[in-house]
Amino acid sequence: MTEAGAYKNILGGVTAPRGFSASGVPAGLKKDSKPDLALIYSEAPASAAGVYTTNLVKAAPLELTRQRVAAGTARAVIVNAGNANACTGERGLPDAVEMARAVASSLGIAEEEVLVASTGVIGVPLPVEKITAAVPQAVASLNKENHALASRAIMTTDLVPKEFAVQVHIKKSVVTIGGMAKGSGMIHPNMATMLCFITTDAAIGSEALQTALKRAVDRSFNMITVDGDTSTNDMVVVLANGQAGNPEIKLDSEDYRFFYEGLLEVCTALAKMIARDGEGATRLIEVNVTGAPSRQDANLAARSVVGSNLFKAAVFGKDANWGRILCALGYSGAVFDPARADIFIGDVQVAKDGGAVEFDEERATEMLSQDPVIIFVDLKSGAYSATAWGCDLTYDYVRINGSYRT
Amino acid sequence: MTEAGAYKNILGGVTAPRGFSASGVPAGLKKDSKPDLALIYSEAPASAAGVYTTNLVKAAPLELTRQRVAAGTARAVIVNAGNANACTGERGLPDAVEMARAVASSLGIAEEEVLVASTGVIGVPLPVEKITAAVPQAVASLNKENHALASRAIMTTDLVPKEFAVQVHIKKSVVTIGGMAKGSGMIHPNMATMLCFITTDAAIGSEALQTALKRAVDRSFNMITVDGDTSTNDMVVVLANGQAGNPEIKLDSEDYRFFYEGLLEVCTALAKMIARDGEGATRLIEVNVTGAPSRQDANLAARSVVGSNLFKAAVFGKDANWGRILCALGYSGAVFDPARADIFIGDVQVAKDGGAVEFDEERATEMLSQDPVIIFVDLKSGAYSATAWGCDLTYDYVRINGSYRT
Repeated sequence: MTEAGAYKNILGGVTAPRGFSASGVPAGLKKDSKPDLALIYSEAPASAAGVYTTNLVKAAPLELTRQRVAAGTARAVIVNAGNANACTGERGLPDAVEMARAVASSLGIAEEEVLVASTGVIGVPLPVEKITAAVPQAVASLNKENHALASRAIMTTDLVPKEFAVQVHIKKSVVTIGGMAKGSGMIHPNMATMLCFITTDAAIGSEALQTALKRAVDRSFNMITVDGDTSTNDMVVVLANGQAGNPEIKLDSEDYRFFYEGLLEVCTALAKMIARDGEGATRLIEVNVTGAPSRQDANLAARSVVGSNLFKAAVFGKDANWGRILCALGYSGAVFDPARADIFIGDVQVAKDGGAVEFDEERATEMLSQDPVIIFVDLKSGAYSATAWGCDLTYDYVRINGSYRT
Repeated sequence: MTEAGAYKNILGGVTAPRGFSASGVPAGLKKDSKPDLALIYSEAPASAAGVYTTNLVKAAPLELTRQRVAAGTARAVIVNAGNANACTGERGLPDAVEMARAVASSLGIAEEEVLVASTGVIGVPLPVEKITAAVPQAVASLNKENHALASRAIMTTDLVPKEFAVQVHIKKSVVTIGGMAKGSGMIHPNMATMLCFITTDAAIGSEALQTALKRAVDRSFNMITVDGDTSTNDMVVVLANGQAGNPEIKLDSEDYRFFYEGLLEVCTALAKMIARDGEGATRLIEVNVTGAPSRQDANLAARSVVGSNLFKAAVFGKDANWGRILCALGYSGAVFDPARADIFIGDVQVAKDGGAVEFDEERATEMLSQDPVIIFVDLKSGAYSATAWGCDLTYDYVRINGSYRT
């Protein structure tokens, strides 16, 4: 018998949990005829929770989804790539509503049960008629296998689709959690910083689900950065349809902790995939900070290093420039004593007590050539730790972002 | 007779004011034999004021200079490029003291009258013996003409030397203010964000001088950004030696306001030169924000746009992607109503009330090809304005910073 709390990674994505199906179809929003419209559907009404961008400028679909998630339940999520429906003026909200209405009508569910997300260019009206025309095909092709197509349909400048799923043994049942995400560019630790859709067959109320999601997002998606920009459309949404048949997971129970760990595992895996796939990136960077006087100081320190353009460019150039790490720690806002900080690049100590140490340059270059590049910082100023993820800054980042719209 | 308050730009730099001389000599810290040691000298004791980096990690010379400026007077500034004497452990401060002592001894002044600054690589002990060996030559070559050599000696990855000077008519005299600066990389709005040395022959007490400098720095150097990193060594220092013979300028007098305007002119000109010369930059970007509910909101908004990697890369690519401007405003922390914001690229309105307007793409591309690129944002949410400066993000930024140390 498997012990409660054990979990294992499984293949699949948003359709791994019982009672979910998905599809991805071309609606003609992307220039080629690749899939650009994804649909996720739950056979049964599901508890819903969401975390959204902190950007003051919020896209219309995000506003609609936030309202509907706040009501507590949902059954479907429709997502288009190619157009963000952001900064589209008074047309934005009615267009998002129309997208949802087409899905509700085709599925025969209430329109309030449909959540909406969009990603792509900002400031161009959504060609909503293309979307509504493609919705019947999206509904018709819903099945268990199309999770991969759905994860491809939400990609913009992403190079690879991003899916992950785990099974968690709670006390009397096995629950499954699956997810898909898109990232690339505009990835920054300021709340849900990309699109991510998570499904689970666990029975859990929306309040407990929201608490678990908020905490998991803070330790995963909010700890990644690609370029410091926070998008107008970012969201993480989770649907829990109860099809696992477990007794409802209550806040602060043992089952809740097991479920949370599984949810965090899915969020962390997807967040790292997003960081690794940052625009133009060649390598994932993981910065581990320990010895901070508070969790917030640890977060600030780890995110500052992984977000420093100078450090990111040094990683691209395989230059063991630890001064840039210490410098980024120094302006992070974290409280610590610079004269105590130790810094390691992989297994090579490059600074001790805030100053230089002799080190093997060749070995450090080797550590900077690995993927991921692992940085370890001990502030020796307290007992808190944090980990942040990012990517190197490359010629390709400039190329991609110099010509995204045109 | 010229009206009080009038000022004019003049040629020259730190030796333009009466009673100042300068030199720039090679001490062997840079790999070639270019000048890397600059000296500024005032015949008479001068009031001193300074503004320093907010980075928690502070270089030893900065700590020494801060102490000495706090005492209120100084007569010389010695600056080396090629080594920052930062994160150099217990050796850092004695090395900075020794640099100053060599200058004091050679000039026959008190060592406490010598300020010290360093710029270059972090974490490598300062080769102080090379510097002290070159000090006699630096002293021997002090004269009025060598301001240009001094401004070259403090360059690191800067492509051009940066000098500026103005003459200000105050009530009964003409005072001159001159300055030199180095920037490039690590330029960010968080206090003195590079090295800048300003001289003036005005008679003004150190308290009034400090007040004027702080205010001028907030509106110039603190409004530029190249890559968001704040260095360990940044400082702006001003020396006022009273050789103009004017009655001492008192805080809040009319003369004080005239002097402040001249000082701001010097600071702004040097700050823009630094932004224009950001690593790899091809064009200066100026972002004007108006209609903000407070000066702080205006500052946040302007700096956020000019600091956005996505927007900077779009300028490089001449892509009129106004959505990135609105997005950067949205996450700036400034309070405003996104549904009211108007955005102009040069003379082309690209967004109105937070949404798209029809515009001439060709004309917008033309505006994005100019130097400087001028962005104008009206938040229509209040009466405050601010201007920030930065540069585009280019392939060369990545190339330079991928291989700075090696």
